[in-house]
Amino acid sequence: MSATELQLTPNGRLRHFLDIEGLSRELLTEILDTAESFTSVTDRSIKKVPILRGKTVANLFFEASTRTRSTFELAAQRLSADILSLDINTSATVKGESLLDTLRNLEAMQIDMFVIRHRDSGSAHFFAQHVGPGVSVLNAGDGQHAHPTQAMLDMFTIRRYKQDFTRLRVAIVGDILHSRVARSQIHALNILLTGEVRVIAPPTLLPKQAESLGVRVFHDLDEGLEDVDVVIMLRLQKERMTGALLPSESEYYRLYGLTAERLKRARPDAIVMHPGPANRGIEIESSVMDGPQSVILSQVTYGIAVRMAVMSMIAQPQEEA
Amino acid sequence: MSATELQLTPNGRLRHFLDIEGLSRELLTEILDTAESFTSVTDRSIKKVPILRGKTVANLFFEASTRTRSTFELAAQRLSADILSLDINTSATVKGESLLDTLRNLEAMQIDMFVIRHRDSGSAHFFAQHVGPGVSVLNAGDGQHAHPTQAMLDMFTIRRYKQDFTRLRVAIVGDILHSRVARSQIHALNILLTGEVRVIAPPTLLPKQAESLGVRVFHDLDEGLEDVDVVIMLRLQKERMTGALLPSESEYYRLYGLTAERLKRARPDAIVMHPGPANRGIEIESSVMDGPQSVILSQVTYGIAVRMAVMSMIAQPQEEA
Amino acid sequence: MSATELQLTPNGRLRHFLDIEGLSRELLTEILDTAESFTSVTDRSIKKVPILRGKTVANLFFEASTRTRSTFELAAQRLSADILSLDINTSATVKGESLLDTLRNLEAMQIDMFVIRHRDSGSAHFFAQHVGPGVSVLNAGDGQHAHPTQAMLDMFTIRRYKQDFTRLRVAIVGDILHSRVARSQIHALNILLTGEVRVIAPPTLLPKQAESLGVRVFHDLDEGLEDVDVVIMLRLQKERMTGALLPSESEYYRLYGLTAERLKRARPDAIVMHPGPANRGIEIESSVMDGPQSVILSQVTYGIAVRMAVMSMIAQPQEEA
Repeated sequence: MSATELQLTPNGRLRHFLDIEGLSRELLTEILDTAESFTSVTDRSIKKVPILRGKTVANLFFEASTRTRSTFELAAQRLSADILSLDINTSATVKGESLLDTLRNLEAMQIDMFVIRHRDSGSAHFFAQHVGPGVSVLNAGDGQHAHPTQAMLDMFTIRRYKQDFTRLRVAIVGDILHSRVARSQIHALNILLTGEVRVIAPPTLLPKQAESLGVRVFHDLDEGLEDVDVVIMLRLQKERMTGALLPSESEYYRLYGLTAERLKRARPDAIVMHPGPANRGIEIESSVMDGPQSVILSQVTYGIAVRMAVMSMIAQPQEEA
Repeated sequence: MSATELQLTPNGRLRHFLDIEGLSRELLTEILDTAESFTSVTDRSIKKVPILRGKTVANLFFEASTRTRSTFELAAQRLSADILSLDINTSATVKGESLLDTLRNLEAMQIDMFVIRHRDSGSAHFFAQHVGPGVSVLNAGDGQHAHPTQAMLDMFTIRRYKQDFTRLRVAIVGDILHSRVARSQIHALNILLTGEVRVIAPPTLLPKQAESLGVRVFHDLDEGLEDVDVVIMLRLQKERMTGALLPSESEYYRLYGLTAERLKRARPDAIVMHPGPANRGIEIESSVMDGPQSVILSQVTYGIAVRMAVMSMIAQPQEEA
Repeated sequence: MSATELQLTPNGRLRHFLDIEGLSRELLTEILDTAESFTSVTDRSIKKVPILRGKTVANLFFEASTRTRSTFELAAQRLSADILSLDINTSATVKGESLLDTLRNLEAMQIDMFVIRHRDSGSAHFFAQHVGPGVSVLNAGDGQHAHPTQAMLDMFTIRRYKQDFTRLRVAIVGDILHSRVARSQIHALNILLTGEVRVIAPPTLLPKQAESLGVRVFHDLDEGLEDVDVVIMLRLQKERMTGALLPSESEYYRLYGLTAERLKRARPDAIVMHPGPANRGIEIESSVMDGPQSVILSQVTYGIAVRMAVMSMIAQPQEEA
């Protein structure tokens, strides 16, 4: 079953959240609108609503994470859920249990939602295929495949700063090839945006036939930044350096690092985004990261509201069922 | 003081839960009946009751665990307790504090219940001897001695599938010698069951004079499975292989692995149980584990209700005191 | 900005809690009085008040800790806060993010209070300088600088057992030089006490010109204990042994270990304190630690009430703002 079929109920409501690909503009907009309503919850003094009261959310992070894990945990707490956080390295898998057995056992504990991050592409999809009715899976990053809540918080950030998605030029800069964030952003932008989605990267860090993703490809940063409204910098995975893919950190910075000087190519009101954690002085100049055009910390804040939105939308059809 | 005296109040109510041995049939039945009432809590949409609201449960796992630790945590959450989970390896004992000092310090934090798993037999008993009035200890597995909540969830599972304990034949298969689970199951079955408790194992994995435990001993699996109503498989601790106790994994599987073929010796409506995590293809064939007679995942589910039952029964006499 | 200016609002209310130095006698007394009111909360059956409901407290422990971390967590739970506990070693800093970036990201998650322990002196101060309005920082121990909640729970313990701080003689024994606990205790005692603060240590474990701290210095234990009302033993960091600072554990015990015999030099109703975890047989004899004059476990209990007091006082001006 495709992710699209898998993640929707027969009447088109959200059942899992695995991948942006195949979702409708209406559904993505509903996520953004629902998140908007939750920003008022997280802004106010008592940041708590009872939407998930008596439900259990299990956080399964097979890969380390601070930002994503913490914001999922805070989102669940602010919806009043009970939370089970499992440190996977020191538990079941030590005793040699398979992923499916781990899942089956957790499901038997009457978990309502699984938030899963795993180094294997397709792992969240795999979980979703095997859970029973009434149980939902949220993909918090699977291999190089997808990171849909990250993409939605990025869309939320763009809409907040640019009002809507009409006639925007958005450039994604960096290691497109290995980035689940980029892949999910491109899908979301293609669904929501009228305008142009650009990717800027050396040929070694681009998927083959990148144009088929619906993006315009640039190898030159200056050229690609020309007149854009939004610049999304990707984190450079330093481990790529050891391979033949990249020359050196300083060479990368010279060619693809976003400096204040270079940012002038973009529109004067362009915003700068980054999924974090950023490497200062490698893919982005410190002054840009801390500068007036940076909205990087807003992304973190909005991440909680967006994750609350997805969780509450997923809880709804379960309630109706 | 014996565990029996230690774990009951003067008027016979549960004060700690350390060991099945010495408890009455009435008390075990009350645990099962109370657990029955909690299954409706965990089945419903809002899985929460306020029985332990404002109480603090400390989870002290000196040994790694997913299943037991998670179900204790969920049980406490669903009873609305506050939970303190201590990763013991990275905390006090690092600084060289003794177990008793650790206990004394935690007790000074006004913890109401300790859930303790420790590699030393008698550790829960030791804790119970030293805590003050109003503080309770739940044994989540001590060395090779006892694992009483596991045994009670197993009894709950048997009663659920077999209606009552009358004239049942139950076989426990595997490493009886080193298993705290088997020890507690045998005690519980001897208290509740009319019928026959069998243990099936090679002589090297049986305690001396095993018959004195009140069981019938078999060394041959086929023979031991004949006409049983319940088959309980134990996890094979692979580290036993390195000693002289066991020849090899494949040899063990050939002699004591539960296959579909062998299961035919049991009654057609026999159920198959396992405390988990199971080694597929070592003590149990995959098709049996996932087959129609397996109730292994139900055991996990019932584990939450049974732990809620024990915690709430323990909380009661404290309230009355 | 000095810690004093930093940790108070313009109208003199507590905004952060970084250091005892520079705080007024009135404010310290208010903390003690507020803690007094919370002891009744933690004594009663339902240990919970809604003062921090809907607020998020983040526990950032860059150094291992059981006692301090657990009591901060319990204090926050009993005030009904949501809690985010970050295991810093396995998270952001792994990916090479700076302390300031970690702070900025956590702040973007709308954390209301940070509890921070860090091996660097000044780290809590650094955090407090950089957080935005409405966010507070509680120092849970920074390097060799300060541990103000520990000092306040010690003051609370002294007041509980000695009624007030009038004409008391208090001796602090051990490694004054490297102890953030001693430093904060000395500040607190100098603010609250009329009487005499003594420090007892070998010259190698004393800061230069220790007298300038407002204490009377003794190198001889027997002499220093003469007629004191309160003896505070410090934990001996065994790693000091490897340097030239200390001869050996047994030599240290012979010279500075508190034995029952030596304790007789103090007043008959003197109390013995220790911040824990104690090294029995190194800085303190077991029989003294468990004896009638020891109030060491009361310190742990009072630690929760004192931390609840500080958190609730800090939450107040935020509400009023």
